[in-house]
Order: sequence, then structure tokens, then C-alpha cells
Amino acid sequence: MNCHKTLLDTYAHIMSIENKGNVADYIPELGKVDPEHFGVCLTTNNGIQYTAGDAHIPFSIQSIAKVLSLSLALSLEDTMIWQRLDVEPSGSAFNSLVQLETENGIPRNPLINAGAIVVCDILCTHLKDPKKELIAYIREVSNNEDIQYSEIIAQSEKSNGYRNYALVNFMKSFGNIKNDVDQMIDLYFYLSSIEMTCCQLSKTFGFLANGGKQLITNKEILTRSQSKRVNAIMQTCGFYDEAGEFAYKVGLPGKSGVGGGIVAVLPNSYSISVWSPRLNKKGNSYRGMEFLELFTDTTRETIF
Amino acid sequence: MNCHKTLLDTYAHIMSIENKGNVADYIPELGKVDPEHFGVCLTTNNGIQYTAGDAHIPFSIQSIAKVLSLSLALSLEDTMIWQRLDVEPSGSAFNSLVQLETENGIPRNPLINAGAIVVCDILCTHLKDPKKELIAYIREVSNNEDIQYSEIIAQSEKSNGYRNYALVNFMKSFGNIKNDVDQMIDLYFYLSSIEMTCCQLSKTFGFLANGGKQLITNKEILTRSQSKRVNAIMQTCGFYDEAGEFAYKVGLPGKSGVGGGIVAVLPNSYSISVWSPRLNKKGNSYRGMEFLELFTDTTRETIF
Amino acid sequence: MNCHKTLLDTYAHIMSIENKGNVADYIPELGKVDPEHFGVCLTTNNGIQYTAGDAHIPFSIQSIAKVLSLSLALSLEDTMIWQRLDVEPSGSAFNSLVQLETENGIPRNPLINAGAIVVCDILCTHLKDPKKELIAYIREVSNNEDIQYSEIIAQSEKSNGYRNYALVNFMKSFGNIKNDVDQMIDLYFYLSSIEMTCCQLSKTFGFLANGGKQLITNKEILTRSQSKRVNAIMQTCGFYDEAGEFAYKVGLPGKSGVGGGIVAVLPNSYSISVWSPRLNKKGNSYRGMEFLELFTDTTRETIF
Amino acid sequence: MNCHKTLLDTYAHIMSIENKGNVADYIPELGKVDPEHFGVCLTTNNGIQYTAGDAHIPFSIQSIAKVLSLSLALSLEDTMIWQRLDVEPSGSAFNSLVQLETENGIPRNPLINAGAIVVCDILCTHLKDPKKELIAYIREVSNNEDIQYSEIIAQSEKSNGYRNYALVNFMKSFGNIKNDVDQMIDLYFYLSSIEMTCCQLSKTFGFLANGGKQLITNKEILTRSQSKRVNAIMQTCGFYDEAGEFAYKVGLPGKSGVGGGIVAVLPNSYSISVWSPRLNKKGNSYRGMEFLELFTDTTRETIF
Repeated sequence: MNCHKTLLDTYAHIMSIENKGNVADYIPELGKVDPEHFGVCLTTNNGIQYTAGDAHIPFSIQSIAKVLSLSLALSLEDTMIWQRLDVEPSGSAFNSLVQLETENGIPRNPLINAGAIVVCDILCTHLKDPKKELIAYIREVSNNEDIQYSEIIAQSEKSNGYRNYALVNFMKSFGNIKNDVDQMIDLYFYLSSIEMTCCQLSKTFGFLANGGKQLITNKEILTRSQSKRVNAIMQTCGFYDEAGEFAYKVGLPGKSGVGGGIVAVLPNSYSISVWSPRLNKKGNSYRGMEFLELFTDTTRETIF
Repeated sequence: MNCHKTLLDTYAHIMSIENKGNVADYIPELGKVDPEHFGVCLTTNNGIQYTAGDAHIPFSIQSIAKVLSLSLALSLEDTMIWQRLDVEPSGSAFNSLVQLETENGIPRNPLINAGAIVVCDILCTHLKDPKKELIAYIREVSNNEDIQYSEIIAQSEKSNGYRNYALVNFMKSFGNIKNDVDQMIDLYFYLSSIEMTCCQLSKTFGFLANGGKQLITNKEILTRSQSKRVNAIMQTCGFYDEAGEFAYKVGLPGKSGVGGGIVAVLPNSYSISVWSPRLNKKGNSYRGMEFLELFTDTTRETIF
Repeated sequence: MNCHKTLLDTYAHIMSIENKGNVADYIPELGKVDPEHFGVCLTTNNGIQYTAGDAHIPFSIQSIAKVLSLSLALSLEDTMIWQRLDVEPSGSAFNSLVQLETENGIPRNPLINAGAIVVCDILCTHLKDPKKELIAYIREVSNNEDIQYSEIIAQSEKSNGYRNYALVNFMKSFGNIKNDVDQMIDLYFYLSSIEMTCCQLSKTFGFLANGGKQLITNKEILTRSQSKRVNAIMQTCGFYDEAGEFAYKVGLPGKSGVGGGIVAVLPNSYSISVWSPRLNKKGNSYRGMEFLELFTDTTRETIF
Repeated sequence: MNCHKTLLDTYAHIMSIENKGNVADYIPELGKVDPEHFGVCLTTNNGIQYTAGDAHIPFSIQSIAKVLSLSLALSLEDTMIWQRLDVEPSGSAFNSLVQLETENGIPRNPLINAGAIVVCDILCTHLKDPKKELIAYIREVSNNEDIQYSEIIAQSEKSNGYRNYALVNFMKSFGNIKNDVDQMIDLYFYLSSIEMTCCQLSKTFGFLANGGKQLITNKEILTRSQSKRVNAIMQTCGFYDEAGEFAYKVGLPGKSGVGGGIVAVLPNSYSISVWSPRLNKKGNSYRGMEFLELFTDTTRETIF
């Protein structure tokens, strides 16, 4: 199959149909983006990149970064982290708070907010300067020294983050937060502010399509076993209350962010990223979902 | 890799460690089984079977049959069924009732009880003699005329099935049950009573490892697209509140039943079944889970 | 204070302001009533009745009858009934199902549907011909042989009662229903179909304003202690999710029904009934609530 | 009836039966109290006090103080406060968080933690030095300049108050907290730390038995209407998930605290306080509940 042609054809088709949904505006900064941006980049395991559209414009990857903080936590503590986190899908957002209550402050998985906060707490326990060391790790995984936090997004998250303050205090009441609340929640807000282009994002996630090893350099980011498990978690928990829909329609492990980005991997083959800011009702990129469904329907390659 | 040797070695290892958990006894009949049974059968896509232990003793496949009723419904209505069912994981059992309430009687997915009841209702709408036609379909998929309902299990389910009567009436109050309650719930209880051996079970599920086509005969049970989607649903919803754990540890789409059976598939490769009646706290076969984790760790072949 | 004048003035004032809300139509029969009916009757403990408006037109008292079935159950088993029922307010309707789950099938109180169903089950255990004996009891309490079930309402309830079938089966799964499901739920639907006029209703409830003794005859319907406790339960649980509001604004123990009726008592003084079919958002008679708030504001006599 | 003799007899009887339950220890300071303390004081509306046992030993009144902050808020804003608070019972503690979510950050009533926090926020908006002015108000209501915050209890609450920090941030995310989080939550922790003896407590609450007017001085603390409504709220919401039970068994409006105190009023007659630190499973004083049930059974005077 001519992968590049399929990608361009799919892109053209999705561009030709109506774009739907709204840009996230729970923080003012996110609402300022042009809703019609649309970019795609596929990186094969041998490092070739195919792109379409706005693949070189940086955007806020938001929750997608939770996969990278999870990877760092796995590098530091391996399976020890599962004493403080579960790996089950969370159902509707509505349930996540109830489940924290009934499950004694143990978040359902590391990709929902509560779980990513616990991951940040784990990082704070291990790192001397968590904010600095986290971005250094992400630059290393990306093999790109230019990746940065957005100070303006981080501050905007912080001044609108009362629900996250509630989560962290609630988990602290169950003893599942070990570090000082204010310091560690700061790390969480910075994590959410990272910006990448589609090309940077798909290249960064290449290690999850490559058994845990960085593309080209073959440097081990995660062991093969850890890498496979991160993919499993993305598969079951990566799309809020649309994980089942994504598995059903697309059939690749992946993760979305409210900035309109989605990244997905076909193990042993490629990593692909899409960015389009309008979100469907479940909070995932409308065009991102449409694109990936059509693309995998055409290539007929999925994990299932 | 010598697949048969790995299977035998894994079997021997699991046999050598302590068996844990309890046999399901919510209906008296299930409680009568010998808790120490343990059988395995792997069927490759070219029809070769490798077995270990009690692979030829029939057992109650229970909820595993929900995948087969779903397949029949997909054959009859294809994607139309998703107007009355969702494809999302359900979280804890506790939530399923709440979610039915907040989601207007639409079950989270076709593999939880509420969803399988709606599937039975769909079948009742299409079939003249649903009970007879369903078992005929399952015999056809299995390529085995000996597959039967267990009258004694069906009656036992029925006389202890108040919670299922509650579910069906609750959904009826939302208009999501179209047929007469008593008739259609009867079909559901018979569906839960089907018995197979490990060898019959893994052979039956071979079509899901084979792009929807029956092994050997290549008869189309489901289209490739439908087959891939059934696998996706098993992956996200097949293990009650342990779907994430199964994805994480085993990494294959599959389905378990409270009779202690588990079936899983590696697309394009094989279908495997395990049976051991003692269940862990989440209601899945203790040895079944242990066996499949060790087996896939050894073969290093998973969908991730 | 001139009680009759206050009643007439209050009636006139409420008539002069806009009537709001909608008539219940979850069963077709209830939806057929003229929404502008408005009647009031106050019966003093010495048997004098003051009326205004449509006080002599029969209407469906619906859930108000749950207080009478509770009284009969208390006569039969006294405090033994609390082994199968609680006396706590239920919060929002939404919670009642969740609470049944978390509290093992024990309804929160005898005035919500689940609780009234358990009360009917208790009656079925004691009575040979429950339907006949229940109406006989209610006629005795009312001192009126004309009180009747409405066959047409009962059948309408039954053919729309899937949610109640769900409740009874759900509780049966916890072992909190002892009798045959179909027989006992029948009693429940008949209980909901009783019709009275405002004058009959306020006279019937006179015993709860009179320490458990029927007005005039002084016949003991309940002991003083039981009577006081039924009032306490009405106070905390009598108005669905508006019990607190009713306590706050009106300050009398009482019970409402979706037919638009409300009955309330001032212990040692009087019993009052109001009927107006339009319901507010919480399911209580709009004019009934308005009338009673203004009436008790004027008389300045409440239990608080 | 000889009120003093009944009080002494009841006290003696309760002393003669086994004391059950445990002292609250969620903050270390509360756990240090002698669990066998037991004191009672009844203050009649003409100012006479009858006592038994440890009626002159100060204890932490804890949540009982929420009635006093509510009174102050009503004095300042009257019914305006109900735009930010409801008056319905909250059901189980478990539900309170869910209800905050489904009801957009509006607490069920002013006597649960979330509601009392909103009341503190209202006070912070009106008062220049909230901590100082609140204690001044309570001293005025008590007619006693010696009433004080316990600095040690307040600090202990604060350093264990993560769940309350969670509540306040959660409500802030819905816009239902107007003031700076840290400052206002401080007021809440001080409110919970107030200490009184049984005699001070029953005298302080005399105004709620006296139509809103302070005993002896007849100074108006609340209007008659406000006073009646505070009683209604105590009746339906004053005993956590045991409000129905207290109404059923005791039949007086009242409020309990985890320090083992209970205060209750019989409108137009008396105010009574009991203190005994061992709590039953629902978090209310074991002996306090037993005492008040027996006392009102004997006097046969309740609001019902």
C-alpha cells in the first residue's frame, strides 16, 4: 500500500466534509486557536515521516503529555506505581469522583486527571527539580531540545484549576498524595501546557510503536514489556468516555487532548498524530476521530 | 517458537502454584463443579489444536456466549444495533445500574448483562423461534451439531434471576425493550446455559482470529470489519471490571464467564481457551488469568 | 383566630395568582383531569370541617395512600417492619436506586415507591385477601364505606409500571420481597389508585392529628407512639425531594401525591387537605404548596 | 410533670446501661477526651436550668456551631442565602459529593460541611474581621463573654482538613465560593473549634425554643419566621444520615456534633443539651440519642 497517498487522500476527503464541534474554552488561552487548523503526521518505525496540512504548527498537546509522565514514572518505579493507581477505564467523567470515593482515593487509571496527578506526585518524590527534570525527560524522548512548557497556558490552567485542586486535596485525605499539595499540583499544570507540532508528536511517540525503543537511535525509553503495557492503557483509557468507540472505530492504542490533538500507534509499524481543534461532545477532536477511522478503514491495518 | 511446548510448560507451571479463589455459586448448579478442573486449548488459524489438561470436558460457558449472540445480531442488523447499545466499558458493576439511569436505558455495551438482554430483544424481533434459531446459529459457527443448552442451568438461572428481571423491566420503562418481557428474558437465560469443552470453545471463536471467516471452511460468519469490531469490544468490555487489567497483563481481546472459562484471540494467528472454575475477586478465572499472562509473556505476541 | 375566614382568604388569594406547572401524565388516566381544579378542606380535631372550592370532587390520592398502608403494617407488626425498611429521607429520586444497591435492598423509607412495595409485601404475608382487606381497612379508618379503588387507574398504573416491576425484582434479588412478585405488585398498583375528595381525605387523616385515635369515635387506629412516629416519617420523607422545603416553608408533617393532592396535620389540632393537579418541578402540587405556606404563615401555627 | 425528676431518672437509667460506640478520632485532639463523660442540661423558656452529670465541663461543640453561623448569615442576608444553598436532607455522606456534582456546586443544606462552608463564605463577604466578628456574635447569642475558639482544635482540624479543602475547591469550580479559599476555610475551621458546657449550650439555643428571642432579655436574635425555619432545617438535616431516625425516635428539632454533643428544642417550651463522647455508627452520641429518646418517651411532649 502507498501509505503517503492514503494519508493524503484521507486528508483531502476529511477536508471536503463539514467540520463540526467546538474548540475547548475552559481556559481562555485554548479558545484563541484557529478552529480550522488540521494537520497530520505519520512516522514509520524506520523514521520516515509523511505529512499533510498543518503538521508543523505547534499546539497544546494537553492530556497527551500524561502518557509521557506515566512513562517517566514507570522508568523510576516500574510496577510499584500500581500500588497507588489502577488500570481500569473510568466510565463517564461523572463517575470518576464517585469512584475515587468508593475506591479510597485510588484513581482508576493514570490517564484521567486524578491519575495523572498521582503520577506527578510520584515524580515529585523522585526528582529534585521536578519541573526541570520532567521537561528534560520529554526532550530526551522527543530527541528535540526545543520542546517547551507554555508559561501562559500553565498559568491559565492554574488560575482555573479549582477542580484539580479539589481532586488533589480529596486524594490527600485518603493519604494518596505524599508531597506538598501546592508544589506538586504546579507540576501537573506545567505538564498540561506542553506544546508540539504533529511531526514532533508522532516522532516522540515512535518508541511505543517500536517496543519501547527510540526510533533511529534505538535507545531504550521503556522495556518491551512496559511499552506494551502503556499501549494497553492507552487502548482502554486514552479517550475519556470514548475509549470503546475509538477501539471500535479506529482500533489503535492512542491518546487525545482537549487541544484537539490525537496520537495513536500501530505496534511494530508506525506512530501517527492528528490535530484539529474542534472537539466532539465527548471532548475528542472531531476531525481527528474521522480521519483515523477512515485511514484505518482504508489501510485495513489495526491491532484487531 | 514451539507453541505446543510453551503451552505445556505454562500449564505445568500454573498447576505447580497454589490455586486460589472460589467457584461461582450464585446459582446452585454452578457450585457443583469440581473446582480443580483446569484445561487449555489453542486453535491455530490453520485448524491445528494444542491442548493441555481437561480440554475435552464440557463446562458452562456462561457470559462467553454473549459474544455469539452479539455476532448474530450484527449479522441481522449490522450497525443498526448501536442505536440501542453503546460500546463503552462499564466500570464497576455498581455503576451499571446508575449508568442505565443516567443514559436513559441504553446499556454501556453488549457484553454486560443489560446489553446482552437488549441483544436478545433484537434477536426476538427477527427470529420466529428465537431459542431454536439461536442454538442453530451457534452450532453453525461451531461447526458442531452437538452444542446444547443445559436445561438444568437455564432453569436455575431463571429461578435466581431477579436482578435480570429488574434490568429488563427497568430498560422497558425507558422503551429499550420491544418484545414481551417474559418471552425474551427466557432467551437470555438459555443463552447463559450453553456448554462447550475448551476445544469446542477455541474452535468456535476461531473466526474472530480469522477476519470473520470460519476456520478451514472459510465461510463468512462476520465481515472483516464486523469481526475487527467484535474484537475491539471484547478488548474494552470483555472482563467486567478487569478489562484494563486483562489488556495490561495479557494484551489479547477476549471474554470470560463465571463458569471459569476464558477465550481470547490473537488476530491472524490463533484462538485460545482456558477453563478453571475458581474465580478471582473480580469474577474472572484465577488460573485462566494467570495462565494467559504467563503464556503471552513467554510468546511475546500480543496485539500491543 | 377565625380559622374559616383565614382559609377562605388564603384560598381567594391563591386563586388570584397564576397557576403554574403541569399535570402528571406518566399514566394516561391522570392526564385527563381538569388542571384548574382547586379544593381545600380542614377538619378540626373535634370534627368540624371548613372547605373552599372543589372540596367534594374525588381525585386520585396516589402516593398519599402509602401512609395508610404503612399504618396497617404498623398495626400488624409494629416495629418489626423496620427490619426491612429504613426511616431516612431518600434525597433525589436518582439516588433511590443507588441506595437500594448500596443498602442491600432495604428501602430508605416507607413513603418512596420501593418502601411502599415492601409494605405491600408485608401486608401480603398477613392478609388472606390483601386487596379486599386493605380497602376494608381504609374504609374503616375513613369511617366511610364508599372509598374505592379505581379499576381504570390501577390497570393504567400496571401497564406502565415497568420501573416498579424493576424495583420489586431488584429487592427480591436481595431477599427483601417474600411473596410472589406478580401478586404483591398488584396490591401496590391498587393502593395507588384510591380516590377521595378533599373532605374525605382530611377526615381520614384526622387520627394522625389526634394521637392515633379516630375523630369523634375515638377508636384507636394507631397507638399514640405509632401515630407520632408516622408524623415524623411524613415530616422527613413525605414530599419526595422537597421534604426539607416543605418543612421549611410550611412546617407541618404531611404527604403529597402526583394526583395533585396534599394532606398535612397539626398535631392536637387539625388535619388539612388541598387538591390542585398542576405539579411543580419536584412533583408536588404547585397551588397546594403555595396555599399551605401562606395558610401557616397567617395562622402562625406550625410544629416548629 | 416534674421535669427535673424525669431528667434525673432518665439520666440514672441511661447511666445504668452499657455505654457503646467510639470517640471520634479523625483529629487527634478529639480522641483525647474521657469517653465516659455524660452531662445534661435543660433550660426552660423562663430561664430555669435543670442539670445532671457533667453539665459544667466544656467540650468541643463541633458541627453544632453550624446552626449559629447559619443564624448569623440569616440575620445578614435573610432568604438571599438560599440562592447558594438548598434545604434538603443529604442522604448518606457518600451522596453529598455526587450531589454537589449533579447540583452544580449547590450544597444540599447549611448543616452539612459543604453547606457550612458556603455559609462561612457568605460571612466573609459581609464581615471585616470574620473570625473576630463571628465569635462576638456567638458570645452575644450566648450572653456569655467567655465562649472561645479552641486554637488547638482549630489547628488540628486545619492540618487534617484535606477533604474540606477538596469541597471548597470543588464548589469554587462551580463559582459558588466568592472569597479567597484559604482565608474563608480558616473561618470554617475556627467555627468547628468552639467549646461550651452543656449549660452554656442549652442556654445559647434557648432563642430557637423562644420564637427567635433570647431568653430573659427577649432580645431578637432571629425573627419568629427565621427561627421556625432554622428549627425545620435542624429537624430534616441535623443528624447526618440519622435525621429520620432522630425525628422518629425523639421528635424534636436538634443538631449533633462529633464531639458527642446534641442540642434539641421543644418550641415554646425548652432547649436541652446532652454530652457523651462515644458515637454510634452514624456519628451521633450514643448516650445522647438514648437519653433523648427515653426522655421524650417519658414526657410525651414532642413536636409530633
